[in-house]
Amino acid sequence: MEHVTIRDIARICKVGVSTVSRAINNHPDINPETKKLILDTIREYNYVPNNSAQNLKRTETNTIALVTKGVGNPLFAEMIEITQRHVKGKDYAFVLQQVEEEENEIMAAIRIARERRLKGIIFMGGASQPDVSLLKELTIPYVFCTVDSRIPESLSGWGIVAIDNEAESYKIVDYLCSKGHRRIAILTAYAHDTSIGKLRLDGYRRALKDHGIEEDPALVAHMRGTGPIYTMQNGYDRTKELLASGTEFTALYAISDTIAIGACKAIFDSGLSVPEDISVAGFDGLNLAGYYHPSITTIEQPINEMALETSRMLFRLIRDKDLKERHIFQAALREGQSVRAL
Amino acid sequence: MEHVTIRDIARICKVGVSTVSRAINNHPDINPETKKLILDTIREYNYVPNNSAQNLKRTETNTIALVTKGVGNPLFAEMIEITQRHVKGKDYAFVLQQVEEEENEIMAAIRIARERRLKGIIFMGGASQPDVSLLKELTIPYVFCTVDSRIPESLSGWGIVAIDNEAESYKIVDYLCSKGHRRIAILTAYAHDTSIGKLRLDGYRRALKDHGIEEDPALVAHMRGTGPIYTMQNGYDRTKELLASGTEFTALYAISDTIAIGACKAIFDSGLSVPEDISVAGFDGLNLAGYYHPSITTIEQPINEMALETSRMLFRLIRDKDLKERHIFQAALREGQSVRAL
Repeated sequence: MEHVTIRDIARICKVGVSTVSRAINNHPDINPETKKLILDTIREYNYVPNNSAQNLKRTETNTIALVTKGVGNPLFAEMIEITQRHVKGKDYAFVLQQVEEEENEIMAAIRIARERRLKGIIFMGGASQPDVSLLKELTIPYVFCTVDSRIPESLSGWGIVAIDNEAESYKIVDYLCSKGHRRIAILTAYAHDTSIGKLRLDGYRRALKDHGIEEDPALVAHMRGTGPIYTMQNGYDRTKELLASGTEFTALYAISDTIAIGACKAIFDSGLSVPEDISVAGFDGLNLAGYYHPSITTIEQPINEMALETSRMLFRLIRDKDLKERHIFQAALREGQSVRAL
Repeated sequence: MEHVTIRDIARICKVGVSTVSRAINNHPDINPETKKLILDTIREYNYVPNNSAQNLKRTETNTIALVTKGVGNPLFAEMIEITQRHVKGKDYAFVLQQVEEEENEIMAAIRIARERRLKGIIFMGGASQPDVSLLKELTIPYVFCTVDSRIPESLSGWGIVAIDNEAESYKIVDYLCSKGHRRIAILTAYAHDTSIGKLRLDGYRRALKDHGIEEDPALVAHMRGTGPIYTMQNGYDRTKELLASGTEFTALYAISDTIAIGACKAIFDSGLSVPEDISVAGFDGLNLAGYYHPSITTIEQPINEMALETSRMLFRLIRDKDLKERHIFQAALREGQSVRAL
């Protein structure tokens, strides 16, 4: 059969042309077995649907975009995989938009929302105090995942899935203090950071204060330059500098597990040991931190639950744009082998 | 000014309505400074473009899809970040499509290509012998990245960016043999694998043969069950089993760095050392492998170059659909601290 048309496929499958169209366009409203029969038949007869043809009414695909600065960040990579799977299970398309460290992610989201007919947006990471005038321009529902961003109550159609970064950071520094450490260095974000980096630094400061330890600026190592913050390379470089500076410390708190792993490697490469010479603590609870040798003591974010809740929350917001939701998860201190008591 | 219209914005910016439309729709054919002026003005006046309005002719966004089974695989995460940035720099939208381990990625690609007007597709990972009848249905250009898939010369508009997996695998097993190892276990993909897993196993077998070592089936540990192959958990579990089996081996070759890291952790958790008791080699050259303690001896794929070439090649294919390109990169043996000479 040459020049197979959609009518031929419909006749062979004993269905209407609109049903074939629904199968081709992955429309949810079709019996799965019928869909399979149609797609198998299409394949068998090498039928190539002509989307511009008049006989095929094109159904717009529902799309959700995920905007992030950290595709290469293992924390986000794990979460992206989970949300993407959930979104796909809902028969929505999933657009991943990487934003550069220096870009404004909300501006980027507004642009994507204008380019395509998005149903919703997930921000993974991002500012804790987003520009309200920009948020007002974002007229589709959105969820901030991992950051408890301050969004005015006057807005609606938004959600937050996060942990309490300040309190969880306090928890691990408090733990280091309870193990007898008083000289605790911190590897943290850029000095101008206004996102989770700032919150985790705040938690460090409050814990020191509660333990009567005065902050030593020489022990606060900010990232420098530009580009992604939460990298092993940054952890390695800043730790090498700290060690070279001669400043004494018995423990090092890195505000992410990736930074902590780079820090450990720098300590080993300097002929020292973890935790015998320097104890190291991380944050996030990456798989990777558990497989490191020694395994890294860290704050474990409930990554799977947060990723899934992010996607579920967005679909609730899509159904009801008047909602505003905030779900703050509990994280847990996960003891590894990288911290010893003094 | 209330109820700002596109005409108001055009008047304020002293440009035509079509220029404002181009700025809003991110059309490439516009002076960047003009575009910035327009977008700033839009923001200043809180103008919300109404895409369904008659005065705005909608320009379809050019889109490229990346189809992969391994968003959570660090090798792919690194590559996705790079290709995504390149695609975005070309003013194309980027759609990420995760495919389940058991799914056929070409079938998935055909579906996405039908749902949206894609300009091209990148496969990251995938079958080395894809179904030709399915490939014929894929009427837009595509590039297979990391797998040297066999695509018939009768087809065009395709590209390959890969390394020679068999030869590179041979290289690292040959290296282990040259260090005096003869009892070399391998942690490899599913027994039914037809992708890089099979090729890397083939390389292992050829190297053993060339060194006059008879293959011991007890040393070939295939992954079992379902789901992602290249995980630390799989490396950990299979190594625990190998150690418990009592089968002796002095070296362990894991066909990915992630699997190698899981293997190292299992060895440490069993009270043994790497490389003192067991040497471990990986494959891929992940950043992570260099930061592990000990750093993992591995085959380093030129990840950045391959990711960039993938994107560049796809744009060449988009310009000229008659092209067929195959770019096989050289990988390099990267000596770490995880292998010792016997």
